[in-house]
Amino acid sequence: MRKARPGGLFYWQNKEMLTYPNFNFEITYQDSKSRAKTGILTTPHGTIETPNYIFCGTKAAIKALSPTQMREAQTDIILANTYHLMLQPGADLIQKMGGLHKFTGWDGPMLTDSGGFQVFSMGDGIFANEIKGKKQKVEEGKNSLMEITEEGCTFRSYVSGEKIKLTPESSTEIQVKLGADLFMQFDECTPYHVTKDYTARSMERSMRWGDRCLTEFERHHKGTQALYGIVQGGVYEDLRRYSAAYIKDRPYFGNAVGGCLGGTDEEMTNAVEWSMDGLDLTRPTHFLGIGQIKDVFRFVRYGIDTFDCVIPTRLARHGAAYIKGVRGETINIKNARYRDDPEPLDPSMDLSCSNYFSKAYIHHLFKADEILGMQILAQHNVAVINRLMREVRAAIRAGTLDALEKEWLGK
Amino acid sequence: MRKARPGGLFYWQNKEMLTYPNFNFEITYQDSKSRAKTGILTTPHGTIETPNYIFCGTKAAIKALSPTQMREAQTDIILANTYHLMLQPGADLIQKMGGLHKFTGWDGPMLTDSGGFQVFSMGDGIFANEIKGKKQKVEEGKNSLMEITEEGCTFRSYVSGEKIKLTPESSTEIQVKLGADLFMQFDECTPYHVTKDYTARSMERSMRWGDRCLTEFERHHKGTQALYGIVQGGVYEDLRRYSAAYIKDRPYFGNAVGGCLGGTDEEMTNAVEWSMDGLDLTRPTHFLGIGQIKDVFRFVRYGIDTFDCVIPTRLARHGAAYIKGVRGETINIKNARYRDDPEPLDPSMDLSCSNYFSKAYIHHLFKADEILGMQILAQHNVAVINRLMREVRAAIRAGTLDALEKEWLGK
Repeated sequence: MRKARPGGLFYWQNKEMLTYPNFNFEITYQDSKSRAKTGILTTPHGTIETPNYIFCGTKAAIKALSPTQMREAQTDIILANTYHLMLQPGADLIQKMGGLHKFTGWDGPMLTDSGGFQVFSMGDGIFANEIKGKKQKVEEGKNSLMEITEEGCTFRSYVSGEKIKLTPESSTEIQVKLGADLFMQFDECTPYHVTKDYTARSMERSMRWGDRCLTEFERHHKGTQALYGIVQGGVYEDLRRYSAAYIKDRPYFGNAVGGCLGGTDEEMTNAVEWSMDGLDLTRPTHFLGIGQIKDVFRFVRYGIDTFDCVIPTRLARHGAAYIKGVRGETINIKNARYRDDPEPLDPSMDLSCSNYFSKAYIHHLFKADEILGMQILAQHNVAVINRLMREVRAAIRAGTLDALEKEWLGK
Repeated sequence: MRKARPGGLFYWQNKEMLTYPNFNFEITYQDSKSRAKTGILTTPHGTIETPNYIFCGTKAAIKALSPTQMREAQTDIILANTYHLMLQPGADLIQKMGGLHKFTGWDGPMLTDSGGFQVFSMGDGIFANEIKGKKQKVEEGKNSLMEITEEGCTFRSYVSGEKIKLTPESSTEIQVKLGADLFMQFDECTPYHVTKDYTARSMERSMRWGDRCLTEFERHHKGTQALYGIVQGGVYEDLRRYSAAYIKDRPYFGNAVGGCLGGTDEEMTNAVEWSMDGLDLTRPTHFLGIGQIKDVFRFVRYGIDTFDCVIPTRLARHGAAYIKGVRGETINIKNARYRDDPEPLDPSMDLSCSNYFSKAYIHHLFKADEILGMQILAQHNVAVINRLMREVRAAIRAGTLDALEKEWLGK
């Protein structure tokens, strides 16, 4: 048993006992000039190469794509959201149906988040406005739909309207029932427009919540799941470093970078760098909710191993298709210029799912409000991102990441 | 040159010249007790066995299913609607893109209708109300959105609002541009709540329109498309027989049964029987817009070779899944009884597309408004109908259609 860390944090006492026998993270190549690396992440549902991209199956389904179509697009790993699933259909139901893998038919590696982010982002108070880009006066730790206490947080279900409490213990228990391979500690996703003092207090609470998650996790631990700790600390160097040190000091299987990342590229980069400085990078590190193509190129250099973001399928629903080398990453297929374009979206790529169709046809499907349009673009975007990640891994090994970035971002 | 038929119809003069060298219909088995038969229909895009089911890709897309998914569901033939496509994206665009097969990626046999049915059904006047089941006072041949004259009909585009004229000649020309294998003469789909006199006059106009279609068709004829004539005559025996005799007397490749079929099973059966009595049944006969499972069993016995209906995919969008042997043909997956049902929709069937998922999962997808739910059910329903048609063909040959009908309809 070690001494408690400064700051009066509750110290998780059984550190040495928590191991992950069915999981592994092996670094296969380390760049000499940056933290960029390739690795192999092993889970009970398969092994993936890193850096990799985790696609969002929010409500236990990728929007408009079946598991078969995800595999056709060469997907390695997906995630589902605890918040949505605990409300509908409920964690007990999914457990009864054999867990998320059996329920959804996705038999590869899977991750769940803790539910915290959605609780803090889906209300109509400051946290939601923060995430939605609206600034307003801050009333810390509370909005009209959600309240945070030391025990956890309370919010109203958007499905039933009833009041629901989510705690480190219940988030952990729910994620155990869901049965994903990788899961996240319960934390508060601290907003931007709060004081440094609030950010510090929120971070420390998330650390205490993290210890409670570890304790609850150990109680259920059968070796089939692995827990990630989340670095908080907002845009403040001392807090990020302090939070990272906490994560490093605890027996998490993986690291995640979360919380407020600021409003500028520089703030985001700093927040990541300070976090990564303090983390144990022999553990896999996930970047929560970030995943534009430019982000992938920027943050693999800081050592990020996995990304997740809803945008590949969300963009698809709005008619935006990723094209390698296009400025802004996507084209809008609804643009009139594609009305009579007989070419596929990207003939240079081996994308059988979308190369089957002309841009003119996909344009027509969007004009005609045919669901097939978003299905085609969703599969296209997922396939392009998976191709991106394969090329990124190869470029890291070859030392050609700068050149690849120029190819993709059209700079 | 033959004499004009009684009734003063314009006689299509080059009857002997119109042949369909790349098409064929061969009857492979004829039941001795009914008109039920099996056949092989050959088109430039492949050969299908009959009886068969033509799935509706109204706007050049099957709702929520790609051509690949249609093939996985063992689909033989699909259709697209001239009315929708002439308005968006336009026949010229589709021709420029290489025709419907190349545009959609469906390389099997395809049919287009004439556009007439939608013109008469999509307005807000009596024809629409007829089709939507509303009764009101009849103002013949005219509603607020559409007007019929000898030349053709005029209506307002639901896309652009502009006034558009559709004639036998323009419908034919559009269908030539679309390039489907099988296409339909332009006709008026006579409503139910009109007088016999109006039905007769409308039928005779549709005959004259049919002759103009044949003339225009011959002008474009390159052997890659085949024209069907449509029997009208409403629920009146003498008119049905008269209309069928007209079709038989013209060099159509195929027959279609259209128009008003009455409000009862008996009226519908009579309308079909009188039509079939007068037709040349060595030609393939299509039943326009009819395709419940019970209809298939009833009307293959009257010699119908192909059916089409939007219901397999429309039902899917509302959560209804075909199940063999269930009364009413479908179950509603949104029903609470399926919330924790771990079984697939129909484990007795080789339906890899839907057997992959539990009823509980599909139920959840509908509750959570996930598009994937309707995708799964659409593919399921198409696969079940294709299975139905395979079993119907086998049962006709084996003389076991009565037993098969009981199996399917749960009687």
